[in-house]
Formats: sequence, structure tokens, C-alpha cells
Amino acid sequence: MPTLVLIRHGQSAWNLENRFTGWWDVDLTEQGEEEARLAGELLGARGHDFDLCFTSFQTRAIKTLNIALEAMGRLWLPVEKHWRLNERHYGGLTGLNKAEMIAKAGEEQVHIWRRSFDVPPPLIEPGSPFDLANDRRYAGVDVPRTESLKDTIARVLPYWEQNIAPALKSGERVLISAHGNSLRALVKHLSGIKDEEIASLEIPTGQPIVYELDDQLNALDRYYLKDR
Amino acid sequence: MPTLVLIRHGQSAWNLENRFTGWWDVDLTEQGEEEARLAGELLGARGHDFDLCFTSFQTRAIKTLNIALEAMGRLWLPVEKHWRLNERHYGGLTGLNKAEMIAKAGEEQVHIWRRSFDVPPPLIEPGSPFDLANDRRYAGVDVPRTESLKDTIARVLPYWEQNIAPALKSGERVLISAHGNSLRALVKHLSGIKDEEIASLEIPTGQPIVYELDDQLNALDRYYLKDR
Repeated sequence: MPTLVLIRHGQSAWNLENRFTGWWDVDLTEQGEEEARLAGELLGARGHDFDLCFTSFQTRAIKTLNIALEAMGRLWLPVEKHWRLNERHYGGLTGLNKAEMIAKAGEEQVHIWRRSFDVPPPLIEPGSPFDLANDRRYAGVDVPRTESLKDTIARVLPYWEQNIAPALKSGERVLISAHGNSLRALVKHLSGIKDEEIASLEIPTGQPIVYELDDQLNALDRYYLKDR
Repeated sequence: MPTLVLIRHGQSAWNLENRFTGWWDVDLTEQGEEEARLAGELLGARGHDFDLCFTSFQTRAIKTLNIALEAMGRLWLPVEKHWRLNERHYGGLTGLNKAEMIAKAGEEQVHIWRRSFDVPPPLIEPGSPFDLANDRRYAGVDVPRTESLKDTIARVLPYWEQNIAPALKSGERVLISAHGNSLRALVKHLSGIKDEEIASLEIPTGQPIVYELDDQLNALDRYYLKDR
């Protein structure tokens, strides 16, 4: 039976400051590192093991994976990194404190940007300090200037179909370390969650989510490892 | 012009205790982590950049790479891990303090085991606490029970030829984080060092070694980055 485990990265510096992060590459806090270590220890203690890992191009997800793997004695496992697992791009909201944003655009508008399925935030300004269009890491990538959750899902799922699903179908046990919205994309796909419900599904940081799948990758069960 | 940089992992717990380590998976010391960070900072400050990284299946080399990449802002680079880049397997000497070994077998014999080209140490005992034949990491690998330096070179070079050299020839800039003897294998090959000289070539921990290569991967120059 294929097993898939998802982890959202531990607390980042901007989670703590309540700023829209998106593609901006902030580091984990000490608490975030601790969450990653505890996640790895929990996975090891419960007898979970893996053959292949996936993560994004973003430091906070890569470090969460590295720290968890080290805690499991599995730092040697193969890891594939891809920008398609990155966090949702928050466009012109990137770098803004959520309270400042509410003062500027109103609570209702901010709520729409964060929680609607298909309304993207305003485009990021070219030349903004948070514009990553010319970052070497994304050479050859059509870097988004903003994304709705729907847009994020649309660029995550091809990677799932082409890289992750085939590994699971061939019997590999897969661990994915990623972000709130790239994981929402996977949970929506696997658990068949409706468009209007997925944005409000909270995915806590550093908590391994276990999917038990059948051979066709239909979800038989999904649970937080800590609850079992 | 293809560029290749080699780094031997930072100080490990058993480097510090002067114990034969080989394939045993000891961690870096704090000093070893600091060496890795400084290596990454030096590479970044001197304008070195990479497209692809290689490392062994051993924690001390993988962590050295991860720490150096983080210091360079390049944690997102692809990394391939392979057992063929592991340290030389020290057979029955694994875990022994070098002073204890000298007391037991004599200084001359220990010197031969460490510094001869083709004399392997005694075989590791099956069931020894340091026997990794049944470690999950090496499933499908014919784990050596001991290795001479010649044996180590013989299993490193196929990986060079099949995985690393083609990447360099296709124009990728390559960083390798590995071990004293797996790096000796590469330096011997690239710099044409004689059998009787390679064992005494010291490769210091945490010091980036730069190879400037021509298109056929002949070495035009080799130097410690700190010296330029």
C-alpha cells in the first residue's frame, strides 16, 4: 500500500512576524528548526521510513526536510527539489505585514486575497525588492507575478502527476516537505476537497500528515501522525 | 572552461578522537560545522557558483555540503548522493583509536595499512558493531569488508566517469563534498599522481580545492581557494 507523508515547513521568520511570504526565501526560526526535528523523531519513533523525498526550491522547506531526515538517520535518502512545490506567490502583498495590509486595503479585501480560491493579489511590481524574476534559482522558469490558490494548484499538480505519483505507484515511500498552499494543492487533489473549502483548510507547521493510498492513489485515510 | 570544486568534510567526532572511521557514520563536530560554513562563505565571496553537487551516503559529507550550500544561498541546488563517494572502508580497524591500534599491531603495520596503496586492513568481522552489511542505506550494494586505497579508487572512478565527468563536459559547474580517500581517488585521476605518492597526499578538512579543467577534463590548475 503506497504511503505518502506531507510536512509543512516549521515556523519561519515571517510566519512569526505575520508577513506575507510566498516565494520570498526566509529562513526557519529556532522554533521552526525544533518543529522539524520533532517531526523527524516522531516519524522515526512510529516506524515510518521513506525511499524518496521531494521539496521546493525554498530554504524553509529544504531545511525542514534536512533536519527531519537527520533526526530519522536518513540524511542519505534521495531528495528532488522543484519550484512547482513552492509556496503560493503573494504578488504585491509579498513582504507586507498582515496588519499593515489590513490598514491599507481593508480587512475584507485582505481576507479575499488570502481565502478566496481564484482571486489573486495585485501583481508584484517589477524591480520590487521581493521580485525574484531574475533570481538565478528560477532561470528558465516563468516566475509568477502573483497567484491565486487556483493558480498554485494548477502548477503543483503537473509535478505530482509526472514525478511524485509515478514514484508512489512503483512502490516508493514518499516524504514531501513543502508549504501551506502547495500542500493544500495535494490535499485537495487527494481528498477531493471542494474549491470553496480548500482555502480555509489549515495545515499546521511541522506536523506530519499521513496518507494511506490504494494502488490507484485514492486516499483511504489521512491523519496527523501525532493523533495516532 | 569546466570548473570543479572538491571539499573534504569538516572535522568529525572521530577525526577528533583519532579513530579509524571509514564507512561508520559519525557526525561533524561543532568545529566541523564551522569549517563547512566558512568554506561556503569563501566560495560565495570568491564568486564561485555551481549547477550540480555530489556527495556520499555519509552524514559528515552530506552535512558539510548542506551547510556550505546554505552559506552560499544555494541550498536549492540539485544534489546527488552515492555510496561510491564514501570514505575508504577501514575493515577491522573501524572504530579503533589509532594509538590503541599501534599498541596492538605495531606502528609499522598501522602505517602500512594507512599509507600503502594496495594493502587492505584486516576484514571487518561479520556482526561487528561497525559492520554495515545489513544497513538499509546499502541495500543492493556489495558492502566492502575492507578496502585498500587502490580498492577505493576502483569504486570511485566508475562514478566519476558515468555521473560527474558527463556533467562537467556538458558545462555544469560541479561541487563535490566527500572524504579524504574518495577525494584522493579523484585527485590521483585528475592530476596523474603516482600510486606510491597518492596515499601521503594530505587533503585538509573544509578547504575548497579548485580544479580548472579543459574541455577534455585535463587539469590545467589545482589550488586551495584560500591561497588565491
